[in-house]
Amino acid sequence: MTAPAQNPAPLTGVVPPLVTPLTPEYDVDTASLVRLIQYQLAGGVDGVFVLGTSGEGTFLTDEQRQVVLETTVAEVAGQVPVLAGVIDTSTGRVASHVSAALKAGVDALVATAPFYAATHPAEIERHFVRLKSLAGDTAIYAYDIPSRVGTKLSASLMLSLGEQGVIAGVKDSSGQETSLRQLVISRRERGLRDFAVMTGSEVTVDSSLAFGVDGVVPGLGNVDPAGYVRLFKTAVAGDAAAAREEQDRLFRLFEIIEVADRSRMGASSSALGAFKAGLYVLGVIDCPVTAYPCIPLSDTEIDAIRPLLDRAGLH
Amino acid sequence: MTAPAQNPAPLTGVVPPLVTPLTPEYDVDTASLVRLIQYQLAGGVDGVFVLGTSGEGTFLTDEQRQVVLETTVAEVAGQVPVLAGVIDTSTGRVASHVSAALKAGVDALVATAPFYAATHPAEIERHFVRLKSLAGDTAIYAYDIPSRVGTKLSASLMLSLGEQGVIAGVKDSSGQETSLRQLVISRRERGLRDFAVMTGSEVTVDSSLAFGVDGVVPGLGNVDPAGYVRLFKTAVAGDAAAAREEQDRLFRLFEIIEVADRSRMGASSSALGAFKAGLYVLGVIDCPVTAYPCIPLSDTEIDAIRPLLDRAGLH
Amino acid sequence: MTAPAQNPAPLTGVVPPLVTPLTPEYDVDTASLVRLIQYQLAGGVDGVFVLGTSGEGTFLTDEQRQVVLETTVAEVAGQVPVLAGVIDTSTGRVASHVSAALKAGVDALVATAPFYAATHPAEIERHFVRLKSLAGDTAIYAYDIPSRVGTKLSASLMLSLGEQGVIAGVKDSSGQETSLRQLVISRRERGLRDFAVMTGSEVTVDSSLAFGVDGVVPGLGNVDPAGYVRLFKTAVAGDAAAAREEQDRLFRLFEIIEVADRSRMGASSSALGAFKAGLYVLGVIDCPVTAYPCIPLSDTEIDAIRPLLDRAGLH
Amino acid sequence: MTAPAQNPAPLTGVVPPLVTPLTPEYDVDTASLVRLIQYQLAGGVDGVFVLGTSGEGTFLTDEQRQVVLETTVAEVAGQVPVLAGVIDTSTGRVASHVSAALKAGVDALVATAPFYAATHPAEIERHFVRLKSLAGDTAIYAYDIPSRVGTKLSASLMLSLGEQGVIAGVKDSSGQETSLRQLVISRRERGLRDFAVMTGSEVTVDSSLAFGVDGVVPGLGNVDPAGYVRLFKTAVAGDAAAAREEQDRLFRLFEIIEVADRSRMGASSSALGAFKAGLYVLGVIDCPVTAYPCIPLSDTEIDAIRPLLDRAGLH
Repeated sequence: MTAPAQNPAPLTGVVPPLVTPLTPEYDVDTASLVRLIQYQLAGGVDGVFVLGTSGEGTFLTDEQRQVVLETTVAEVAGQVPVLAGVIDTSTGRVASHVSAALKAGVDALVATAPFYAATHPAEIERHFVRLKSLAGDTAIYAYDIPSRVGTKLSASLMLSLGEQGVIAGVKDSSGQETSLRQLVISRRERGLRDFAVMTGSEVTVDSSLAFGVDGVVPGLGNVDPAGYVRLFKTAVAGDAAAAREEQDRLFRLFEIIEVADRSRMGASSSALGAFKAGLYVLGVIDCPVTAYPCIPLSDTEIDAIRPLLDRAGLH
Repeated sequence: MTAPAQNPAPLTGVVPPLVTPLTPEYDVDTASLVRLIQYQLAGGVDGVFVLGTSGEGTFLTDEQRQVVLETTVAEVAGQVPVLAGVIDTSTGRVASHVSAALKAGVDALVATAPFYAATHPAEIERHFVRLKSLAGDTAIYAYDIPSRVGTKLSASLMLSLGEQGVIAGVKDSSGQETSLRQLVISRRERGLRDFAVMTGSEVTVDSSLAFGVDGVVPGLGNVDPAGYVRLFKTAVAGDAAAAREEQDRLFRLFEIIEVADRSRMGASSSALGAFKAGLYVLGVIDCPVTAYPCIPLSDTEIDAIRPLLDRAGLH
Repeated sequence: MTAPAQNPAPLTGVVPPLVTPLTPEYDVDTASLVRLIQYQLAGGVDGVFVLGTSGEGTFLTDEQRQVVLETTVAEVAGQVPVLAGVIDTSTGRVASHVSAALKAGVDALVATAPFYAATHPAEIERHFVRLKSLAGDTAIYAYDIPSRVGTKLSASLMLSLGEQGVIAGVKDSSGQETSLRQLVISRRERGLRDFAVMTGSEVTVDSSLAFGVDGVVPGLGNVDPAGYVRLFKTAVAGDAAAAREEQDRLFRLFEIIEVADRSRMGASSSALGAFKAGLYVLGVIDCPVTAYPCIPLSDTEIDAIRPLLDRAGLH
Repeated sequence: MTAPAQNPAPLTGVVPPLVTPLTPEYDVDTASLVRLIQYQLAGGVDGVFVLGTSGEGTFLTDEQRQVVLETTVAEVAGQVPVLAGVIDTSTGRVASHVSAALKAGVDALVATAPFYAATHPAEIERHFVRLKSLAGDTAIYAYDIPSRVGTKLSASLMLSLGEQGVIAGVKDSSGQETSLRQLVISRRERGLRDFAVMTGSEVTVDSSLAFGVDGVVPGLGNVDPAGYVRLFKTAVAGDAAAAREEQDRLFRLFEIIEVADRSRMGASSSALGAFKAGLYVLGVIDCPVTAYPCIPLSDTEIDAIRPLLDRAGLH
């Protein structure tokens, strides 16, 4: 394992938020996780992000989180950066995850604002400042996902924290293109060159790259890492037509998240269940189950995902 | 400490959700917690609920939670039931808190639906069923607080879980009087005598008791436990006028949560900060600070709470 | 028709928001409207409110609104006050409805804040002040229905407008019992004796009357006016047990709004469709259709309402 | 005035939603409206849209709407298409506006779903079908603005109505880039060549054009029509860098809507007030007042808009 660099290059490119493969008994399936990591590296990704929302981090116990961290750091072995989600309700609880992740040797941390109890921007600032004091030289990225956290991180707060050296960038999963663009424009105006802006959207990547975002953290990248890498490369090469074609193909592949019957499971279950089902059908992981108490896709639903993979050229 | 009864009487009366007193260094202030418990018992409460939303349970580390549990169980010493919040994002993480709370000897557990990732009612049912399998004879109450969890627990699901023996009742902090009444009416129709329905509202207690709710879990009860006990007693004695008068007095006392400047702190900070400031002014706790990263009330704001306590007859 | 009194007594009691009976061709069915009014008067109501949300006022053309106004004023003939909804998007458009309603001879007006474009409280104040300048001696009630309008009317704004003589009271359909109680407590503290506070809830009437609300504007009162009159009379007589029993019966009758299949129609269609279906089954109106483009209840759904009426003692 | 063509070319390009200039007495200021139209035509716009949200259509009386329609049709004189908003709460009320707009000789109509009372997609379909039966050969565009209407129009419903010949396209002001892209991709898959998709966003135009949207309806286009025309032309010419630069300039110009003090006026007032203030400062219109009861920008706020216009190169 490579030690984290003191001044790592800013994050860029394709950094999929890895799902956490589980056994039928809901243990972490490390053999499947190793195959998933190899599948990602073979696809050409620029980093991996574990224990995020797609990684079902908030569903796992501390022990399970640790297994994921250690397995990933060992398997990636410094080939690309490993980012670790340290998502929890409050500063104190996140701090415990920070310690564990640092001990496991990850390259960067990804933290949301506190949740359950809503906090004010001034309190969110205190939250990140405290976390940075614990993380030392390891980069912290702010994770903006208001649908889960209940709070939108403003561009001005994020860039202020960037200027203070508290955070190294933002993963934007807000789905708000306007605020994302505000972030990019303000970053340029403030001259914050090393502040990374990554989009968490699966379906607006070509647009976001065109207006200046640095990379993408797509849940669907679990299933098709090579597709997102092609999308990224064509976009940064200025071939807008090829990027759009790739994005449109991935847009349609993303329809796998609508296969499951939402009258019997939650939105998280149907989306993550689809990613896992896709990986299961492709032979990457052994079991498509999502974390307890999530209801898994039925065999019929898993079968319905096959033709959508085929249509997208995945076999 | 008294061992939890196998078939405890259904929950009823006034069960305040205790705040967690902290030192200026953000450690649990056990001396203040002991005084708070004595203040509650002297006020005549029917139980105490620790590590709930008012208890800032989601802000505390596992170690801090344990201190609160052990201090409370020791100090209450079986005089009234001790309920413990086991609030966390998922079944697996809640399960750890269940183990810890059982070990500390609490009398009952209070759990929300999973949060951060939204779950379907069928998944919430699995969640509570699993928790009950871990809790054994110890009662579990469902905690319905959609403003924090993002999901409303339906009356039909709650009562179905009650009929299965999975939960012993509900603490309703939904603020939705209609659904609370639905719960009470349906409970009667289904003949679920031992299923407790408690309201988490500070300000509609007389109404809720009049239509059949069993008791109240008021955050403001931290500051004025005796007032809520009077309210409860007059209401169940059928003296609606006296109950209303007491409720109206407490309604106005509740204005303490509006004293803090919301342009510089969150809603949680201003409400819990006001409860703690009230207890500080009354000499019950030593320090009014809320959990990190929450911004505390200023001295001026604390001073502004004094006349509101005076008006309510609290000195 | 009786001329509106200069200083009418404050509104109180049961004032159902009448549905607007339509023919199968979507014309106003005046014969059915006349029978509905007689049904209400026979039930003992204290007033009628036409062209409100239950009256589908926003679905009707100006000409249809006028037919409703004139038919109602003529049929009621001064026996009880006639309140008219003047609900529209802006001050200017509401002003036209005010003129039409005054010309028709109604006794009071009911207006919401502007909607479609959201307005600030200071703008809402200007709105009501202008309307009052047009209405002269005719009372204006503010209609607080944030689910439709998108804005909550605060207690402080409403009472300030009451003190200025701009509005004569509020119809609260916010479903927020806490703010309703705030209104009642603040009204008393300010000594605003003649300011009427009416609840628009069908299912919390006994509670609201117990804490000081003056009356109720229940959509379900279309179907069972006599029931609400009994509820009101027992509540104001201080017989809380009888009031609760009546309220619980009406709570269950209100389940008629859940009969229709919500996967094929909107919430408004299923609720108003149920009220109309109830009146149709009871022989009061000739056709249960709701306003275009709302989808009506099927024959099967209408049949499913019969046993619920029977259970409530309505034949 | 040119008669509307039977088979007009699909809508494309820049079609600003014109504000409605008012006098200090809140009458329509036709002289200013004429100058605004000339300013737009000089800027090279491809059409104008009156009585939309920016046009404060829902604030105006029927008489005022008619003045706007007739003035615009006369002044435009067939040089570009005139689109007219027919925004109202229900099918019946919209129908009256359709008749008035057809009589005035507009080229196309723009209608939302019903609002105030929420409707089901099946009811929204009936709404548009009825409107089309009244509009005859005149095109109807669906206006998707869930922030005002409370309902999102789905891509599948819109395209189904397109296939039926009911609507000629959509103006998307949902702010949801994913659903907008879904619309574009599904349109292509269904082979719906003549179905226009226009974005109502001011700040994501280059992106939207890049993935296949046909044009833009920007409120900010009131102030800088030539800028949006340049943006459109560079984008369709494939010069992504120039388009992005123009978009970024307009993004910053859009900051004029944040100048007004939101603690004393609504969001609509501050945005439309800024557009009008910009036009007033540029000498296009005589008075910057917004419709009653909206609170206008102060002189200080108007002055604060000048440097933002200057920075954008507008004098």
